[in-house]
Amino acid sequence: MAKNLTTRKEDYSKWYNELVVKADLAENSAVRGCMVIKPYGYAIWEKMQAQLDKMFKETGHQNAYFPLFVPKSLFEAEEKNAEGFAKECAIVTHYRLKNDPDNAGKLIVDPDAKLEEELVVRPTSEAIIWNTYKGWIQSYRDLPILVNQWANVVRWEMRTRLFLRTAEFLWQEGHTAHATKAEALAETEQMNNIYAEFAENFMAMPVIKGRKTESERFAGAVETYCIEAMMQDGKALQAGTSHFLGQNFAKAFDVKFATKEGGLEHVWATSWGVSTRLMGALIMTHSDDNGLVLPPNLAPIQVVIVPIYKGQEQLDQISEVANKLTADLRAQGISVKYDDRDTQKPGWKFAQYELQGVPVRIAIGPKDLEKGSVELARRDTLSKEFVQQNEVVERVKGLMTEIQENLHNKAKAFRNEHITEVNDFEEFKKVLKEKGGFISAHWDGTAETENRIKELTKATIRLIPFDNEKEEGVCVFTGKPSVGRVLFAKAY
Amino acid sequence: MAKNLTTRKEDYSKWYNELVVKADLAENSAVRGCMVIKPYGYAIWEKMQAQLDKMFKETGHQNAYFPLFVPKSLFEAEEKNAEGFAKECAIVTHYRLKNDPDNAGKLIVDPDAKLEEELVVRPTSEAIIWNTYKGWIQSYRDLPILVNQWANVVRWEMRTRLFLRTAEFLWQEGHTAHATKAEALAETEQMNNIYAEFAENFMAMPVIKGRKTESERFAGAVETYCIEAMMQDGKALQAGTSHFLGQNFAKAFDVKFATKEGGLEHVWATSWGVSTRLMGALIMTHSDDNGLVLPPNLAPIQVVIVPIYKGQEQLDQISEVANKLTADLRAQGISVKYDDRDTQKPGWKFAQYELQGVPVRIAIGPKDLEKGSVELARRDTLSKEFVQQNEVVERVKGLMTEIQENLHNKAKAFRNEHITEVNDFEEFKKVLKEKGGFISAHWDGTAETENRIKELTKATIRLIPFDNEKEEGVCVFTGKPSVGRVLFAKAY
Repeated sequence: MAKNLTTRKEDYSKWYNELVVKADLAENSAVRGCMVIKPYGYAIWEKMQAQLDKMFKETGHQNAYFPLFVPKSLFEAEEKNAEGFAKECAIVTHYRLKNDPDNAGKLIVDPDAKLEEELVVRPTSEAIIWNTYKGWIQSYRDLPILVNQWANVVRWEMRTRLFLRTAEFLWQEGHTAHATKAEALAETEQMNNIYAEFAENFMAMPVIKGRKTESERFAGAVETYCIEAMMQDGKALQAGTSHFLGQNFAKAFDVKFATKEGGLEHVWATSWGVSTRLMGALIMTHSDDNGLVLPPNLAPIQVVIVPIYKGQEQLDQISEVANKLTADLRAQGISVKYDDRDTQKPGWKFAQYELQGVPVRIAIGPKDLEKGSVELARRDTLSKEFVQQNEVVERVKGLMTEIQENLHNKAKAFRNEHITEVNDFEEFKKVLKEKGGFISAHWDGTAETENRIKELTKATIRLIPFDNEKEEGVCVFTGKPSVGRVLFAKAY
Repeated sequence: MAKNLTTRKEDYSKWYNELVVKADLAENSAVRGCMVIKPYGYAIWEKMQAQLDKMFKETGHQNAYFPLFVPKSLFEAEEKNAEGFAKECAIVTHYRLKNDPDNAGKLIVDPDAKLEEELVVRPTSEAIIWNTYKGWIQSYRDLPILVNQWANVVRWEMRTRLFLRTAEFLWQEGHTAHATKAEALAETEQMNNIYAEFAENFMAMPVIKGRKTESERFAGAVETYCIEAMMQDGKALQAGTSHFLGQNFAKAFDVKFATKEGGLEHVWATSWGVSTRLMGALIMTHSDDNGLVLPPNLAPIQVVIVPIYKGQEQLDQISEVANKLTADLRAQGISVKYDDRDTQKPGWKFAQYELQGVPVRIAIGPKDLEKGSVELARRDTLSKEFVQQNEVVERVKGLMTEIQENLHNKAKAFRNEHITEVNDFEEFKKVLKEKGGFISAHWDGTAETENRIKELTKATIRLIPFDNEKEEGVCVFTGKPSVGRVLFAKAY
């Protein structure tokens, strides 16, 4: 192939890395583990943001912004949370550079500008936010607080991969405060459902909803709900999490409220987030050996029109048709790019838009002008058809839904084929090795067994699904009793 | 007054600080100099962002995202830029905390996790971006690059004030690359014009366009264009800047492109930004002793409806009218809040929405039900009128424009009254002391005179306006020849 993309079969990991860079989504930067999100990749993220933000606001949430830095003394206030993140934090210790006396034109850290207290670059914002909420909450009248923040966070991961695991990433983090446990639990579930809805309807990515085991929970959470997706290489990917934090942070930061009845109680909390990791999930769910495949609901360019011409006169004639089509499609809310650049040939453009996953490509050449038609190509099926010019708008409108559904169905079929019920540990290992995917198995409920299985197979319990908790059985590893199957997988 | 806001006359600075906090816009955080932007304040910022983003995209710009951190070696590459920001940078030196062996439950910086190279938390992103552009630009075909970033930046200022000067702030920074000087200059001017258009039409804030003197220029820029506004205390505020960077960054980072003609040249650059400082400008331009006053084009809530009732039956009747009004107004694209909370009294609500600057308040009581009317109050003029219910939508639609224009006219009249032509240095000092505002005076063009005037009066040259450069005269301080008046002022 002209674009020289490694195939998924050859090397899935290499295919992914190459695709992200060649499709102009992101690239590594001069800062270890930090990425540059390029305009085309960022445009997809903006579409994700816009939709999620709408869903958050429709459920009563407002955005706010809290500091990037967390003073060390606040950071360590909730012990489990601090312990969970301490080993991967970027720490600000100084606030000034000065000229290097030994090296003209060079700068060194000014030792006289040492901070009295070190600042942690936020890996997550519970600490700084709950310290703030303390001032916002006095009475039940101040509750609930339903706040979300779009922000950058930093976790100093040692092994990083574009979008999937980067030292700095972009995300949203919701932080809510409630008067009752029931209300906080309902919020935790609501937000997990919103993530699932977003994944299914916009990313065309099927997900399973459930909760994490204790060892996979967010540091400081009482319960972590999650949505888990299945990638084409048989590895699972955690796509979103919603945490019920109980009263842990309220206790750590002494946040109490006067109840209606005149009592004084600690506030109940949730937090929930999705990140630019979703970009990785989107890419790995749909893309193929020719490049990116994007669902129309998140494609920055839904339709591209490419003229095939010799000479200005032909181009003018084609442009007349293309401009009308562009206007008609846009009037239907469809985003269209007419690429009449003369610096690149049609073949180059075809390859480029295929690589970048534009859902529909329309080509118009001299023969089309004669016949009143256009050539229409689908990115998802790579199929082509000729459509009469006056039927293009209707056809494309239909395709937006059709492609979206096709991608969802295809991914769902793949995911369903990759859930294997297993009742024996040898089979467990065999399936994991030969097929991958989710392994649905009984587990005795202990962290010890979970850890042993992880050590032996690298598979972890991705989640305890909400919808299959009540089957009695025996643990696939210890033979001890179990009350329901859980899903194991190797994971990103 | 119930809300106990210090008046502007009593203490302008205190009035501002109190207003920002009491109107729920922002507050100080546990991190020195960093603010929390509260939901109501953030909602105004989101409206600013949405409009600016639209204007950037309409002029061909795309968003992208670059790392938060700049390695010290890149930071120091463009010497003037580095020098300009070195003294106020937050520096990351370590990437891990560990348990304090002497203090259970406490954490200390792990000395074994020292970074090989320190990272500067971006005070601005020219360095990291131009190091990235080096990989994006080979030929004239790759130009122009028209990229914008919405991000947080950190400048370790010693004296901070909410929105006006904070250690961390939110902004957008455009970074463009061009094949020719003329194109880069045109971009610099275009973006300054967009800022002016935004300030005038959305913030209802009159601004003067011009360029900075050499000593007031952005560190590393060849020219800095700006828009300057006048606050109610007679101090100027720089509301946006657009920099022509020449080839300085291209040279520092060795970014060359193959020209159409087969040559190899350094790329031309611009950068331009506005920040959450605009929130401070918005507040100080329009607000009064009763609180915030917001122009309808940026008000998160344009109309609030408050029911005045006794008992559920009356509330139900009022709600029927209010809900219909709400629906009808929303159908016209007007944002409406119907505040029927029973936890607060009407008087409290009136004071609250006045303090928060909601442009139009509608009150509906039992007498209004009888008369088929509502009471409508304008925030800008504090005037009230009774309007028949079936005329409310038309009246409110009209008011959105009327209030927007009234605020703009009022601010413009104030600004114009506060530009004083001065030809003598004694008068200069007198006007500055007694009236404040912009002083339009001749200047001999030297940094020396500029600095002397600053030392003596604290006034700086805010800008050399684009529209009054060609009058001959003599410098107000030295008597040396001058080719045009410049605007001096004390400034935020």
